[in-house]
Amino acid sequence: MNAVPSQNIITAAILVIGDEILSGRTKDKNIGYIAEYLTAIGIDLKEVRVVSDDEAAIVEALNALRHKYTYVFTTGGIGPTHDDITADCVAKAFGVSIDVDPRALAIMQERMAKMGTEMNEARLRMTRIPKGADLVHNKVSGAPGFWIGNVIVMAGVPSIMQGMLDEAAKKLKTGTKMLSDSIRADAREGDVGTELGEVAKAHPDVSIGSYPFFDDKLGPNTNIVIRARDQQKLNEAKAAVEDMLARVKKQLAQAGAR
Amino acid sequence: MNAVPSQNIITAAILVIGDEILSGRTKDKNIGYIAEYLTAIGIDLKEVRVVSDDEAAIVEALNALRHKYTYVFTTGGIGPTHDDITADCVAKAFGVSIDVDPRALAIMQERMAKMGTEMNEARLRMTRIPKGADLVHNKVSGAPGFWIGNVIVMAGVPSIMQGMLDEAAKKLKTGTKMLSDSIRADAREGDVGTELGEVAKAHPDVSIGSYPFFDDKLGPNTNIVIRARDQQKLNEAKAAVEDMLARVKKQLAQAGAR
Repeated sequence: MNAVPSQNIITAAILVIGDEILSGRTKDKNIGYIAEYLTAIGIDLKEVRVVSDDEAAIVEALNALRHKYTYVFTTGGIGPTHDDITADCVAKAFGVSIDVDPRALAIMQERMAKMGTEMNEARLRMTRIPKGADLVHNKVSGAPGFWIGNVIVMAGVPSIMQGMLDEAAKKLKTGTKMLSDSIRADAREGDVGTELGEVAKAHPDVSIGSYPFFDDKLGPNTNIVIRARDQQKLNEAKAAVEDMLARVKKQLAQAGAR
Repeated sequence: MNAVPSQNIITAAILVIGDEILSGRTKDKNIGYIAEYLTAIGIDLKEVRVVSDDEAAIVEALNALRHKYTYVFTTGGIGPTHDDITADCVAKAFGVSIDVDPRALAIMQERMAKMGTEMNEARLRMTRIPKGADLVHNKVSGAPGFWIGNVIVMAGVPSIMQGMLDEAAKKLKTGTKMLSDSIRADAREGDVGTELGEVAKAHPDVSIGSYPFFDDKLGPNTNIVIRARDQQKLNEAKAAVEDMLARVKKQLAQAGAR
């Protein structure tokens, strides 16, 4: 991406925490949602990791990711039960203490009063926030996420995570948005692959992806996705792909007619 | 898991390769499928990573994962286009050469003849297999995956990946299966969390997970999932959870009635 100065590129990783995803019992719905969300606001998602509810695994992944990308978004493990160890692991990764946070406690107490439920040891667990973190408000169920350094810690339940992401997004630095356009090739990947590679090579500031799919009418087909931060470069690459497709499909038709 | 000797534990990681997943354009369907599949045959999925179509990122992730787990399953990036770089990256990670493989070529030529399409440079790309790898047959669309060392390289298209996983599974070592059972608590996580943690502590050979969900009738509710490799230990833990739930719910009802 020579066209855009590097300070306009904001990167991110997602760290999904939870045995239930790795056992296959729960199918993750957060990765795709966050990926689409970040792309839309101009943040490049570069990596995702899923790890189990294991302290060493969480701390190691978190430290690897937070030193590599502008932001790390975690999901899962901030509930009231013994297997919710994310907040403690984040504190450990940052080398800070963790304790009941007066702001989180006030939110939970207000909510408990409203719901007519009592504060207990389990619910108090959800008010433990690493020292130095800001809260990420949770309009859905009260118990907040938090933001420390470049790490944003969110719930695993999709509706709650989505609300927290909206809250966090207000304060995220964003970069020049990645623009994209796609072309339905109406051709097989194997028929256009070499020529598509030549177009890609001729447009180094543009990323061209090729995604096969099965079309019920035409059989094997291909979506070609063109991505760039510069609209003109995107348009030029798109025109080049369309010219190439027309040329190759004409050649194939002639070869078939012989 | 003190009850089971460690040689019966077989571990795995998934490495998903593809910009389209990280941009959110394509929603991954393979992680959940493979997770469930591996759990069912007695392999513990311990980690998942998603990386972009970038050589350095793929090689680094592959080397990290293959030295850590019994198996690594990769999905994506083995098609005929310029952005399909997985096979080359795997060769690089293993420090072996990569070239057209006569077995893969024979498969592709037979398929091309049957389909009435011609072999070309793009399709030839799909016959490039790292030296020393075994093929993983692809009954859906011909172009094979491969297996080198402890790494199984599969397609990204779910139907093709699923066929390849069936093929690979015939030769996978499997461990003592993880058994699981779940209990619908009909209670809020925050109401039973502390007591559940005590049950978990009392049953160290069993993994107890707590997963909140929203019940349309009852409101906030909880699924408790118990996992163990030993049926008797699983049963004992399940009974302990059920006893605890009955006790806590009775207390809550009495408190409410006061």
